[in-house]
Amino acid sequence: MNRFEQQMKFILEIDKVKNVFRQTYLADGNRKENDAEHSWHMAIMAFLLKEYAQEEVDIMRVVLMVLIHDLVEIDAGDTYAYDLDGLQTKREREVKAAERIFGLLPKDQEEQFRELWDEFEAYESAEAKYAHMLDNFQPLMLNDALDGKSWKEHKVKKSQIYSRNAKTMEGSEKIWEYMKDLVQKNIDRGNIQDE
Amino acid sequence: MNRFEQQMKFILEIDKVKNVFRQTYLADGNRKENDAEHSWHMAIMAFLLKEYAQEEVDIMRVVLMVLIHDLVEIDAGDTYAYDLDGLQTKREREVKAAERIFGLLPKDQEEQFRELWDEFEAYESAEAKYAHMLDNFQPLMLNDALDGKSWKEHKVKKSQIYSRNAKTMEGSEKIWEYMKDLVQKNIDRGNIQDE
Ligand SMILES: [Ca+2]
Repeated sequence: MNRFEQQMKFILEIDKVKNVFRQTYLADGNRKENDAEHSWHMAIMAFLLKEYAQEEVDIMRVVLMVLIHDLVEIDAGDTYAYDLDGLQTKREREVKAAERIFGLLPKDQEEQFRELWDEFEAYESAEAKYAHMLDNFQPLMLNDALDGKSWKEHKVKKSQIYSRNAKTMEGSEKIWEYMKDLVQKNIDRGNIQDE
Repeated sequence: MNRFEQQMKFILEIDKVKNVFRQTYLADGNRKENDAEHSWHMAIMAFLLKEYAQEEVDIMRVVLMVLIHDLVEIDAGDTYAYDLDGLQTKREREVKAAERIFGLLPKDQEEQFRELWDEFEAYESAEAKYAHMLDNFQPLMLNDALDGKSWKEHKVKKSQIYSRNAKTMEGSEKIWEYMKDLVQKNIDRGNIQDE
């Protein structure tokens, strides 16, 4: 396969992420959202909220990072944030997926995308911290808009949310403050369990 | 409303574009695709195919442009490329939508997004031409992957595709050549009418 054919193959392959559904509902509550929609939403949020990033970020890098961060789920599936068994094998499944999926691209573009995904996973750079904040904030915002529908279904506890968000403030203190307010509001309404 | 509240309001509002469905099917043929998915796909394609852009492009600008180019359809709906009645009122409906939707943002961000959308609509800059090429190529690629399902349903003619793509080569000659090959292949298979 030549370079162009490899690019076409990858572009068609990633269409499948539109069928990887998450536990979060759309704000109208009619159906769950998929990874392509989630990533699209995060990319726009990344741009609009960059003034709240804890450290200065290369916004182009963040946008690309969030656009591709869930492609590994084409093979590995979505692992729900509070599914402990799934989380144990997640890393291994996702690394294998990254090798296959990014491996469809020409070498230079494979390396670019793999580097972005590895950086996201490492959760150390300013860009990765900001991207992870968005990855947690986006579903929390939708969940709040729907009066905690998904939290109630999964009987989610405050401690689970706080543990998942242990480093969210490193992405943005401002947004983390807002997220804590939303969590408290949903505890008060009985949507999140206060433990 | 303060700046942060305006940003939150916009971010929640645009969730609705996930429910604006297009005439194109996903590559697996199980359902049609929505504007959020289409925009996400275009953004990744914009980055991967930039070496084929006819003129040099500011890729960050293109990515943002494609991410937001269909937000007006939250109010105006998707106008099918070959729906002549719909196309007559499209511009007016979309301008009104742009005013309302981008108007939810703080002034500086409203201006940024409105400028990007106006630039896309004007179809004059290198970035807009490249973005329009992607806007036409992405559904064509999916349609080809499904053996022309949507073309067959709408009895689409070669002349309609060529007329819609009159300026596509200004975005990328290389991709337009490829698109013409795909069109010819689908004419040979009887998926597109040869007139
Ligand atoms: Ca459109």
